[in-house]
Amino acid sequence: MLHRTGDATIVFESRPAILASAAVAGPKEGRGPLGGQFDLVLSDPMFGQSSFEQAESRMLQEACERCLQKAGAGADKVQALLGGDLENQIMAASLAARALGIPFLGLYGACSTMAESLLLGAALADGGFAAPVLCAAGSHYATAERQYRFPLEYGNQRTPAAQWTVTGAGACLLDREGKGMARISCAAAGRVIDLGISDVNNMGAAMAPAAADTLRRFFADTHTSPGDYDRVISGDLGRVGAELLHELMARSGVPLPDGGYMDCGLSVFDPRDDVHAGASGCGCSAIVLSALILPKLRSGEWKKVLFMATGALLSPTTSQQGETIPGVAHVICLEGGEDDAHVS
Amino acid sequence: MLHRTGDATIVFESRPAILASAAVAGPKEGRGPLGGQFDLVLSDPMFGQSSFEQAESRMLQEACERCLQKAGAGADKVQALLGGDLENQIMAASLAARALGIPFLGLYGACSTMAESLLLGAALADGGFAAPVLCAAGSHYATAERQYRFPLEYGNQRTPAAQWTVTGAGACLLDREGKGMARISCAAAGRVIDLGISDVNNMGAAMAPAAADTLRRFFADTHTSPGDYDRVISGDLGRVGAELLHELMARSGVPLPDGGYMDCGLSVFDPRDDVHAGASGCGCSAIVLSALILPKLRSGEWKKVLFMATGALLSPTTSQQGETIPGVAHVICLEGGEDDAHVS
Repeated sequence: MLHRTGDATIVFESRPAILASAAVAGPKEGRGPLGGQFDLVLSDPMFGQSSFEQAESRMLQEACERCLQKAGAGADKVQALLGGDLENQIMAASLAARALGIPFLGLYGACSTMAESLLLGAALADGGFAAPVLCAAGSHYATAERQYRFPLEYGNQRTPAAQWTVTGAGACLLDREGKGMARISCAAAGRVIDLGISDVNNMGAAMAPAAADTLRRFFADTHTSPGDYDRVISGDLGRVGAELLHELMARSGVPLPDGGYMDCGLSVFDPRDDVHAGASGCGCSAIVLSALILPKLRSGEWKKVLFMATGALLSPTTSQQGETIPGVAHVICLEGGEDDAHVS
Repeated sequence: MLHRTGDATIVFESRPAILASAAVAGPKEGRGPLGGQFDLVLSDPMFGQSSFEQAESRMLQEACERCLQKAGAGADKVQALLGGDLENQIMAASLAARALGIPFLGLYGACSTMAESLLLGAALADGGFAAPVLCAAGSHYATAERQYRFPLEYGNQRTPAAQWTVTGAGACLLDREGKGMARISCAAAGRVIDLGISDVNNMGAAMAPAAADTLRRFFADTHTSPGDYDRVISGDLGRVGAELLHELMARSGVPLPDGGYMDCGLSVFDPRDDVHAGASGCGCSAIVLSALILPKLRSGEWKKVLFMATGALLSPTTSQQGETIPGVAHVICLEGGEDDAHVS
């Protein structure tokens, strides 16, 4: 028997529970509207380390450790860590995994990583292959800038469509059973979609078509529409990408209702901070998930949301070689709160 | 119920079948002992593309397409592609996924990627979440050299412990049912282990401790020993790493028997080619799996083997920042041939 509905969507029979989550965020993120909801706000983006890269890894480790602490679980009981980041060779996650000692399955999905880790983590937990499992993603403004764009010291000017990489990391502990903040009922992995965007300062436009493709496939499979969810939440489309997603969905005859859609990329920074089209990075959707989305599901304010992290698949090498920028988006259906746990 | 035995090992109840596999290899690999067994040997490492990176991506796509063709399956029927490579941001796999149009879950496990993809692919298939699934990994000598070491034009001298990145890609199509080349009965994900190796030209030494850790945990969980398998096969430890693995396993009281162990890194190149400690790269274990291991399982020459791909987790950035090099190794238990299909 395949636990699937339609072509794209995986149904998790046990509806794995997110037992706990944690978010660590940088100083600029701490000044934003979610500042009070993070488990730790760094006073220094170096986090006491000797490089930004080490700080990024340490943040991911800290988010995992705080998540385990909140769940009352020891790292030695966790059967798999699924995670990634934006550094070349996902070294932030790899070195965090070294420190944690948990069997590690490294993922790279650019900014879609948090949803990718939840999809695979839910499959491992629901199938009884590994539980509990830890799902994590993080990014750091300073490592991303110098790797993808320019050294910070160069002080380059940003275009209006540019987004600001979140300094932050989020982690969720999943288990097959147990009372949790929310449960994962189904998910869909996305296809790699490329409509020919080549502007490396416009990630939102590059990712929006993949987001629309995944949502369309998910709604068709599940015979649902955006109105069936308290929120349809994208990862980091930013202002440009969010507008394009609205347009693409409307054109497909599945418009996103006013007030029924939000983008994590427009939820992190203080609007007075100069971040142009919004926030981005693996850490963006990961910290908003932990600080905003899961708490609202636990409290019952939201009953059912779609969490869709989106990734722009590019490297400086592919851009220099003239490649356009494809996107990918994975969607996770989260249901809450504790009330309906164990009800399938 | 957890489909697990012991702490580390996942048991796949349906024993997912590898329906077909394919391998594409470069010219130097084609001159090696497995040259006649690859599905395609490139006459030109550029594969008709305008950059080595594009060639690497095209190879991965070609391996996937040939695998699907051999299985008589259309790409539109495949529910997930799990794969990766060594390029920054795994762009070779991402662009191959764009061409294939299959929902894509990107992995980064350095040279352990082929085993990581089989572990997660088997879980998706066995759990009924996605099937068939395509698992793939690839690497390219020229892209790896210029990314991790020096531009080829520099003509640097290689140390005796250095390994030569395989130009090649392999793919396997997994399904829950069906007659296959082999079946996946169980697997274990590895921990990230670091014994302090910092020589970026000695990947074998960096990976051997992780390989030993994974094997020890797997044997303890399954109450088996190396003698219970026709071969214990490592991914790309090379001459230095293979010797160290022998030593570490002997010290643990679980010695690898003579003739019962092989390393894919010592199976690819003609010994007269000047490759020092052997072959490496994601593509190494991927093409040996397809060209040597799976055919021997299908024919019945081997009944049961452990396929353990190993990865060295480093980037030029972490090395320049003084990090040592941790390793990771995932092990997959493969059983053949067609005779015992459907017997659980």
